[in-house]
Amino acid sequence: MPRAADGGGAVASGWRETVHMEVEMAEYMTITVDAMGGDNAPEAVVEGCLLALGRGAGYRLQLIGDEAAIRRILTEHGYKGDRIEILNATQVIGGDEVPTKAIREKKDSSIVRGLSLLKEKRTDAFFSCGNTGALLTGAMLIAGRIEGVDRPALAPMIPTGRGFAMLIDAGLNTSCKPVNYEQFAEIGSIYMKTMYKIASPKVGLLNVGTEENKGTEIVKEAYGRLAALRDINFIGNIEGRDLTDGKCDVAVCDGFVGNVVLKCYESIGSYIKFGITDVFRRNTRSRLAAALVKKDIRAFFKQFDYEEYGGTPILGVGGSVFKGHGNASAKTVMCAIDCAVAFAKTSVLDQIRDRFAVNALAGEL
Amino acid sequence: MPRAADGGGAVASGWRETVHMEVEMAEYMTITVDAMGGDNAPEAVVEGCLLALGRGAGYRLQLIGDEAAIRRILTEHGYKGDRIEILNATQVIGGDEVPTKAIREKKDSSIVRGLSLLKEKRTDAFFSCGNTGALLTGAMLIAGRIEGVDRPALAPMIPTGRGFAMLIDAGLNTSCKPVNYEQFAEIGSIYMKTMYKIASPKVGLLNVGTEENKGTEIVKEAYGRLAALRDINFIGNIEGRDLTDGKCDVAVCDGFVGNVVLKCYESIGSYIKFGITDVFRRNTRSRLAAALVKKDIRAFFKQFDYEEYGGTPILGVGGSVFKGHGNASAKTVMCAIDCAVAFAKTSVLDQIRDRFAVNALAGEL
Repeated sequence: MPRAADGGGAVASGWRETVHMEVEMAEYMTITVDAMGGDNAPEAVVEGCLLALGRGAGYRLQLIGDEAAIRRILTEHGYKGDRIEILNATQVIGGDEVPTKAIREKKDSSIVRGLSLLKEKRTDAFFSCGNTGALLTGAMLIAGRIEGVDRPALAPMIPTGRGFAMLIDAGLNTSCKPVNYEQFAEIGSIYMKTMYKIASPKVGLLNVGTEENKGTEIVKEAYGRLAALRDINFIGNIEGRDLTDGKCDVAVCDGFVGNVVLKCYESIGSYIKFGITDVFRRNTRSRLAAALVKKDIRAFFKQFDYEEYGGTPILGVGGSVFKGHGNASAKTVMCAIDCAVAFAKTSVLDQIRDRFAVNALAGEL
Repeated sequence: MPRAADGGGAVASGWRETVHMEVEMAEYMTITVDAMGGDNAPEAVVEGCLLALGRGAGYRLQLIGDEAAIRRILTEHGYKGDRIEILNATQVIGGDEVPTKAIREKKDSSIVRGLSLLKEKRTDAFFSCGNTGALLTGAMLIAGRIEGVDRPALAPMIPTGRGFAMLIDAGLNTSCKPVNYEQFAEIGSIYMKTMYKIASPKVGLLNVGTEENKGTEIVKEAYGRLAALRDINFIGNIEGRDLTDGKCDVAVCDGFVGNVVLKCYESIGSYIKFGITDVFRRNTRSRLAAALVKKDIRAFFKQFDYEEYGGTPILGVGGSVFKGHGNASAKTVMCAIDCAVAFAKTSVLDQIRDRFAVNALAGEL
């Protein structure tokens, strides 16, 4: 991809824009970013946007938030391009606010504004590291569910021995009905097939054992529904350990289990990385050892770095919504924007719509 | 502790018995072991028993299973002591058998025989690596629940940044009522206080967020019950990542969540260990690095080695029942027997009985 420097570039790795892109602005895809979301906002978010623009072409960004603050950061980084539009928002939803109340009352917050743009089809995707509950609630209330989808889901990628797998749902629905598991399997399969070109994604039902009769009554019923789906590659029940083994591409579970598992994954990975680093720092011998292998060790742990996975899609809502970590760094924001761009370029949303329109017609719901 | 060799000792690390112990046989504690349980039985189980006897005093072992096979293994290892009694059992419950059916029909299996001895107070503890479902079901049906305990629980230890914590329940009850969480907290606290001398064990409720209003309706109600317990050190909701951080000593959850988390823990730990080992084996440089730090790296990963934790207690039943991994090695069996001995020496069971007798009197159930 041909790229030309543009004079700015105070961000560590520098950012560049293609000359080609500057010309065809009108045809650009638009990604809207909540500049005020997360512990490190707006600095990390704006810097992440610059990093993303520097390596990705074909889109422009809309940053919603405190215009003066955003402009100041852009100036600090010497940004002079025109791929960033700033939309001033006078309100911010704090991390502790009650989601439904915040969404209802703070109409001029970056989250409500961004989701409204999505609903009005004035942007192609919305990304926020802000109040998770408000983003999820807002996504459902403002962007709305795709017709036929009973419950949207949060669907992060987790590292496995064979790459990564989708965990769906990871926190949107603490309780699920059997139909929800079925829909998560369908939505997850479409996503993995389209985003990652996996011909026939293996779907596993996260359970306490591999036998068919395991689990709660709801999970047992979910098993029956999944087994009855003709065009889903259902491999049966999987256990916690099968996630790491890479036995499936889509692990289906309720949002309570998924949320706990996701947080365990992140923390065990970083806990071990920390422990190993500590061993390498102990004395002269260990520091010498570190010098010999640190590159490979670092590469190995990269898979546990949630920053690499960027944003987590909220699937089943009528638009591309991505959630970032509350403590996202500029790098995470950059990766998330890459993700959002890649997602918005696919037909995943249309495929989900078609799938559930067919389901609705067939009277299956 | 003074120890004297006893002439045998074909097991790798050798086994020894104290002369002192041989004399006071009548006052010994008895630990009953299912010699036929697990993928590596009876060899690994019998070898584990010899290893345990070699380093622990004050008890004798009853091995239940195929007498000829057990005797052959003992002979192979040159065992000539008298701290092992063999009880012949003509039936074995296979790993795939339906628990309730197996317990009902195989009266002469090692699991049913062992649990019956426990019920009749003819042994101090029972340990098995056999069919998990059968052991759990049998523990409840044969050994019986402690009066006032609504649901017993499986309570393994998981590694944390500050040592380890108890995860209760890890698979006995896929669905729980609020009262179960409350009882798990009480039982777990007694265990950690007594077995590990933690003055005021911190109890956390495993949830999807730390705020009080998080989780399912059942978990929210459980929160209220835990918060109302006067003599439990309830620290509130904890998330998946807080387990690794060592935020609590007892993590309370339903058996579905606990089982998935436990298996994730085990597999992520061994997956990373495997990955790091692989890095160290890549080339001459990395092998040199390995030589410099392997001792410390190995020590670090030891905490993820479930073999170290040995057996997992089933708490709330009227006897000391320990469950071992299906693929337990001799070392795991050894550690589990150590655990069972330590447990049987404590007053944990009596304390649980007292606690729930008081609860029952107070009409709280």
